[in-house]
Amino acid sequence: MFDTRSIYWENDQICMINQIVLPGEFKIEHYDNWKDVVAAIKTMVIRGAPAIGAAAAFGMAMAARNSRASTVETMQADLQVAHDQLAASRPTAVNLFWALKRMAKLVHGKNWAGVDELRAALLHEAQCIADEDVEVNKRMGAHGAALVPQKATINTHCNAGSLATVFWGTALGVVRSAWEQGKDIHVFVDETRPRLQGARLTAWELKQLGIPHTVFSDGASGHNMRRRGVDLCVVGSDRIAANGDVANKIGTYNLAVVAKENGVPFYVAAPWSTVDMSLMHGDLIPIEARGEDEGAVIEGGRVMPEGSPAGNPAFDVTPNYLVTGIVTEYGVLRQPYAVSLRKLADQIEAGER
Amino acid sequence: MFDTRSIYWENDQICMINQIVLPGEFKIEHYDNWKDVVAAIKTMVIRGAPAIGAAAAFGMAMAARNSRASTVETMQADLQVAHDQLAASRPTAVNLFWALKRMAKLVHGKNWAGVDELRAALLHEAQCIADEDVEVNKRMGAHGAALVPQKATINTHCNAGSLATVFWGTALGVVRSAWEQGKDIHVFVDETRPRLQGARLTAWELKQLGIPHTVFSDGASGHNMRRRGVDLCVVGSDRIAANGDVANKIGTYNLAVVAKENGVPFYVAAPWSTVDMSLMHGDLIPIEARGEDEGAVIEGGRVMPEGSPAGNPAFDVTPNYLVTGIVTEYGVLRQPYAVSLRKLADQIEAGER
Repeated sequence: MFDTRSIYWENDQICMINQIVLPGEFKIEHYDNWKDVVAAIKTMVIRGAPAIGAAAAFGMAMAARNSRASTVETMQADLQVAHDQLAASRPTAVNLFWALKRMAKLVHGKNWAGVDELRAALLHEAQCIADEDVEVNKRMGAHGAALVPQKATINTHCNAGSLATVFWGTALGVVRSAWEQGKDIHVFVDETRPRLQGARLTAWELKQLGIPHTVFSDGASGHNMRRRGVDLCVVGSDRIAANGDVANKIGTYNLAVVAKENGVPFYVAAPWSTVDMSLMHGDLIPIEARGEDEGAVIEGGRVMPEGSPAGNPAFDVTPNYLVTGIVTEYGVLRQPYAVSLRKLADQIEAGER
Repeated sequence: MFDTRSIYWENDQICMINQIVLPGEFKIEHYDNWKDVVAAIKTMVIRGAPAIGAAAAFGMAMAARNSRASTVETMQADLQVAHDQLAASRPTAVNLFWALKRMAKLVHGKNWAGVDELRAALLHEAQCIADEDVEVNKRMGAHGAALVPQKATINTHCNAGSLATVFWGTALGVVRSAWEQGKDIHVFVDETRPRLQGARLTAWELKQLGIPHTVFSDGASGHNMRRRGVDLCVVGSDRIAANGDVANKIGTYNLAVVAKENGVPFYVAAPWSTVDMSLMHGDLIPIEARGEDEGAVIEGGRVMPEGSPAGNPAFDVTPNYLVTGIVTEYGVLRQPYAVSLRKLADQIEAGER
């Protein structure tokens, strides 16, 4: 049974499963510098909104560990540099900023006795963020599993599994929880171009877990709904706006539209840290444009003519009306999300949840 | 300017542009045996519904040329063998069967004076099928170009260009005709997984023609409609049922659904030989399932775990209500297609068109 966290701290190193070389190779990378963490996020050695949140938190802890500052003030200045570069690593997933905000609050939130105390506190906080993510995913899994019929074909997109989080997964955590309840599940995996996270990572996770699955080209989802039957879709998210619009991997919107056309419920599974109440709607979410070669070059070979341009928007926004439910660690939210998200935000702020 | 036919007869050989090695290499294959034509269709050295129709016709002409029969009856028996194997090469594109039917009608339709007369007649008929295809595409192009605004962003899927036909193209023929009228066009090219005919072939053709274009992952079409604006979609077809349901490359249905969701007109361009009036609706169209490795292996590298299964339905069916218009050589047909197709079929049968 697959039980390795995608990221953890060990022997004063940040350890990550290298998600670029999967599924051909299972390799743990070891970093002892926060700049390597920035590079790992940018190049997607680690990816997935909750996982990069944890990576940023550990990056801050590493910056504190390596800082030669002898005063708290100097260390705070060092940490600001790390903070800003980590924040600039990727723009769309809000969990990154959520984790950095939580770390920054700690850095500046107390009169620290000395640098060692601050160091220890930051590492402890990063560990908490990682541990909480696992716990939150399992709660989400339990809520989401209740939505899965006893016998179900589930269509997912990209990788929102254990690799995309610290452990267990969001969308794939729901699948795993339902599977562990003994449900008869078959997962249709969108391969998810351009980076093929579905084919490379989701299929790999499902194989480790022994959950039956079939990988399809992204364009086959509608055909499968019409001809084979799909019971539900479940995907993760990189950022959810206050009205319930959902940013997720490019192609998610197409999947949501064909799901609606075919009467297939479309669920989003995401921890509360993915919700950005500061944005009124999804069109305000910054969409990362990544390099052309992610689409143009596969396995070292160029699949389009030299000189033909390729566009590579990494995410899209699925409007709230296409989302049947948002599975969070607090339960399943329903439309209208502007109301249900606001209500939950208020309860959390008031300490009632 | 690109002006090579995808298939032609020269020096008693069937010559084809090798569509497997594009865009890296431009290579003409030369065949002097109908069995090589069967293999070329199966392996997709030549593909595209009208092009494989022409290939089958030339294959029959080659079977006649190579037959050692001394009597017409023996040659007819030889031709039946070739006919049956050509017919079994691919199941979905009806143009293949249309061309074979036309050739078979000739084989059996007359009291041939001798084998040489039959040989000559079959080669002439194959040449006619090829020449007519070019002429038909240009008529289609003229009808379709009228649907394209002066400034237009056009989304296409797969390759329905010159390579998919004998010359000029169906969907891309419409684009080319509009471009030659001086319209300001930008083509968004769906890369079209699994075989990437959009990235490999459509982008290559557009580059030869100097028509501005950008290649995107198939999943980006909806995002592009929402964020960048798309004026129309135009695709080809492998078979159109009597009610206007359209079989085309896998992913076409998803594109049609997101087009409808975004109010983008969705046109299908196909010659009359693509219409199968014998099938009441699209769910009766046989959908080819191709090998797993088309999706699992790209440029020689496996992109999913060993042992994870991949599904590969090569086509899907777009229901008629999603189709804004069907561009044929006789003009643009509109809904309800059960009526407009029937009317046109009757006119053609009566010799009025």
